[in-house]
Amino acid sequence: MTVQQFSPTEASPTPTKSTAGTRHNFPLDMWYVAALSSELTDKPLGRTLLNEPVVLFRTADGAVNALEDRCCHRFLPLSAGTLEDNGVRCGYHGLLFNGDGKVIEIPGQEKVPSRAKVQRYVVKEQDALIWIWFGNEVNSEPTCEPPHYPVHNNPAYHYSGDVFHYNAPYQLVHDNLLDLSHLGYVHLKTIGGNASIHMNAQMDVTQDGNSVKVVRHMLNSTPPPTYSAAYPFSGKIDRWQEIVFHPSHLEIWTGAVEQGSEPVDSPDRGGFHMRGFHGLTPETDESCFYLWTMASNPTQNVEDTMKKVFDQTAFTFDEDKVVIEAQYENMKRFNGKKMIDIHVDVGANRARRIIESLKQA
Amino acid sequence: MTVQQFSPTEASPTPTKSTAGTRHNFPLDMWYVAALSSELTDKPLGRTLLNEPVVLFRTADGAVNALEDRCCHRFLPLSAGTLEDNGVRCGYHGLLFNGDGKVIEIPGQEKVPSRAKVQRYVVKEQDALIWIWFGNEVNSEPTCEPPHYPVHNNPAYHYSGDVFHYNAPYQLVHDNLLDLSHLGYVHLKTIGGNASIHMNAQMDVTQDGNSVKVVRHMLNSTPPPTYSAAYPFSGKIDRWQEIVFHPSHLEIWTGAVEQGSEPVDSPDRGGFHMRGFHGLTPETDESCFYLWTMASNPTQNVEDTMKKVFDQTAFTFDEDKVVIEAQYENMKRFNGKKMIDIHVDVGANRARRIIESLKQA
Amino acid sequence: MTVQQFSPTEASPTPTKSTAGTRHNFPLDMWYVAALSSELTDKPLGRTLLNEPVVLFRTADGAVNALEDRCCHRFLPLSAGTLEDNGVRCGYHGLLFNGDGKVIEIPGQEKVPSRAKVQRYVVKEQDALIWIWFGNEVNSEPTCEPPHYPVHNNPAYHYSGDVFHYNAPYQLVHDNLLDLSHLGYVHLKTIGGNASIHMNAQMDVTQDGNSVKVVRHMLNSTPPPTYSAAYPFSGKIDRWQEIVFHPSHLEIWTGAVEQGSEPVDSPDRGGFHMRGFHGLTPETDESCFYLWTMASNPTQNVEDTMKKVFDQTAFTFDEDKVVIEAQYENMKRFNGKKMIDIHVDVGANRARRIIESLKQA
Repeated sequence: MTVQQFSPTEASPTPTKSTAGTRHNFPLDMWYVAALSSELTDKPLGRTLLNEPVVLFRTADGAVNALEDRCCHRFLPLSAGTLEDNGVRCGYHGLLFNGDGKVIEIPGQEKVPSRAKVQRYVVKEQDALIWIWFGNEVNSEPTCEPPHYPVHNNPAYHYSGDVFHYNAPYQLVHDNLLDLSHLGYVHLKTIGGNASIHMNAQMDVTQDGNSVKVVRHMLNSTPPPTYSAAYPFSGKIDRWQEIVFHPSHLEIWTGAVEQGSEPVDSPDRGGFHMRGFHGLTPETDESCFYLWTMASNPTQNVEDTMKKVFDQTAFTFDEDKVVIEAQYENMKRFNGKKMIDIHVDVGANRARRIIESLKQA
Repeated sequence: MTVQQFSPTEASPTPTKSTAGTRHNFPLDMWYVAALSSELTDKPLGRTLLNEPVVLFRTADGAVNALEDRCCHRFLPLSAGTLEDNGVRCGYHGLLFNGDGKVIEIPGQEKVPSRAKVQRYVVKEQDALIWIWFGNEVNSEPTCEPPHYPVHNNPAYHYSGDVFHYNAPYQLVHDNLLDLSHLGYVHLKTIGGNASIHMNAQMDVTQDGNSVKVVRHMLNSTPPPTYSAAYPFSGKIDRWQEIVFHPSHLEIWTGAVEQGSEPVDSPDRGGFHMRGFHGLTPETDESCFYLWTMASNPTQNVEDTMKKVFDQTAFTFDEDKVVIEAQYENMKRFNGKKMIDIHVDVGANRARRIIESLKQA
Repeated sequence: MTVQQFSPTEASPTPTKSTAGTRHNFPLDMWYVAALSSELTDKPLGRTLLNEPVVLFRTADGAVNALEDRCCHRFLPLSAGTLEDNGVRCGYHGLLFNGDGKVIEIPGQEKVPSRAKVQRYVVKEQDALIWIWFGNEVNSEPTCEPPHYPVHNNPAYHYSGDVFHYNAPYQLVHDNLLDLSHLGYVHLKTIGGNASIHMNAQMDVTQDGNSVKVVRHMLNSTPPPTYSAAYPFSGKIDRWQEIVFHPSHLEIWTGAVEQGSEPVDSPDRGGFHMRGFHGLTPETDESCFYLWTMASNPTQNVEDTMKKVFDQTAFTFDEDKVVIEAQYENMKRFNGKKMIDIHVDVGANRARRIIESLKQA
């Protein structure tokens, strides 16, 4: 009995209803963060990205692979299967797929038909991040290298991270991160501090190609809880926030030195540092993944301090998640009404124009 | 940096999908119950009414205010914000709205643009109830005063209440309350009693303008559990049920005297009284709020008796909720089939005609 | 007050939205399993079958009845009502329906209008199963008898069963049961065993009218956990699997004898037997009920062995449920993509053609 005699058009089950959107709702000729390297262990990882269900897995040679998350036989997600040295095996009838998406074994059947394969995605692991390329055309090759993030290799820093899921479009998280003035209202318990100092902080916004940089300095301010918990400040501090937006992620370098001790705009400044990587990748048109790491530079009680930094960062992002998801639900309820902008939106609005122009391209 | 340079049309996020209905699915030139006075404390109250998300809050002067439940900046619900003496402050970037819906402060920005405002609703607090006016036109002024409910100010009575949410259109609750014959089948544990006595009770239905009155007397009947629990009846009782429907609420005065002791149709009758206020306000086309109070006239063990009356009333309404929500789910499953009416529906059907005529108006 | 004066067209509530599909999405001139006899006790049973909400109940004479699951008055499901000797009474206003769907009492109303009735379905109880007939026309009479299942009356066997709900179309369960090769990947903990033996087992597929028979023999194999738990095998075993598909249900007779002890294809074979009845009845286009019994032939520790057989069978079907529901969710995500078939699909695909042809008829 061979497959030809039982072609799907005749009798095999056919899906009846779609819940999927399309990747074409997002810029495509660019790299997105698919996962943290630490996520790929002994199980395949299923994750919908840009409306496309993807399975990510590491083969015995250490290579990272990404395929459509379906078996080409009866469509069980491959992420429900098991890993083998040279691929992922479906958990229903045992078809074995290699990293190229080709079926290399159909248990009990000699011939493997050439059409027994699924879509493969180009992925690249770099700086402890897994980057994925979609492209406008299926199977199109990347036109550039994924961005570098040297902080993950910088011996001066320790870091850890996590992946959060937001029921909101990814651009609402861009807005949130490009405007840290909300710290004074949303994050009083951790990295907030005095609201009016935040809202009145002098803000410098510059653009360089598809990147936007927002710099804010808050001199002579009171250290917020997270800062005091992580660093032995004796009194008032001079704070800096340097936010760099890229279409696939943001780099946010915040920190503080003892008030008046040294310039806060020097790259060699000392004091307490928090360097955040914020990968934002659409899951669907209405949801996204927030793949983040937070690095700091403790010199003593490293483990203890890093735990504090991680816990308070996670707590902070949970506060943002509540606000952003409530905002999006309300945007849908008030669909059609116009928003008004205020002084803090300049960075966020430039980022939106960049995404818009990349979609046009 | 001023808002004009970053108009929403250019770059700010725009909602993509609507989940809202419209207030025009309901009669609009009338007052609805928005809340019980006791609900407005130190937090803003978010509640969707007639398909419109509203935030209700009390300012330091004691005045009750109602606004669209969104910040005009990035649409976080104002009900997620915090109360200040003269308004509600958004929990995202701290915009402060006064009771008229005008933004009176944008932290860190000198100029407050004139379009920084949201819709305000006319509300009036009276008899411990908060009434709201929608009107056919936005900002239309009320053409009448809200209904009075003197029982809440009557020293002969004690009362307490609560707000229930029903996943069913509000008119199904009208039907339920205008036909108390269901007590014999749904509420045997509390205010029910013998089913056939209920179904055979002589019923008198009269209409006066947009009000419908249903009066039923059940003479020489056995006191139901709630009655026995709240009042020392020695034997059989003569029961009355007086239901008055208004488009915004129902008044239900039920009670009983010792069998044969005095006429049950006298306004000065003694015995045990339960006087219910039943505000019914649509949330959406398919859901509603049931804002109720129950008053009684205990002369001894007041607190204990009132607790019994409240608990058993709440228990009873929970029984109704189960029935009404199951009924509505089934109405949707059997969409298109015709209902048949029986003798007890006369009051309910008149109420439906009144709502229908108000919608036409 | 009589019903004529308050016709539903004037004022009574009318459903506004449909969630129901239609029975015409399925073959209709055939019997389906509606319930296990053991399910019909002292309460009415509400169950949506072929997109139609049905209430099943047993009257005092022991007869099984099936009606539309709605009161014709205000559409409360009759399954929320109570059973009486001669019918089911609605839990809202007490209308009493007999087994023909006719209202035989409206409490408090003398006249029962002739249109006070609901749809009745033809049901037949046989071999401890309740069968229901839908038919292309409403009220059409069955053109045949329901299938017999003598195992339930065979003194050599003990059996028990249960009803599972799957969030997947019923034909995906047909596929699953007609291809037991998945045992080696999905059911390792119970009835699985060596995967390659399963995938390489010689398979014989035959068709007889609207029935498909799949026979597989696995000689000289290791007893899987369930077999060892239920029967004292001393070593290797010869296994058989005989699957017979009918449009309404499958009969699966599996078992094993000591390796080499006797032919596995003899109807009088001894050893350990598991005889499964697998009724599959659509609930909606996207969900189904799986009504099953499992019979075995223990000669000692009957109760203990039957408990093991039942528990491990239920555990196994739960494993299938996880796979099949994940498969269906993924089919919807990948709607439009073609499936490819492999050698094990021959039986399943024939069953699909039979269902297809019955739908055309």
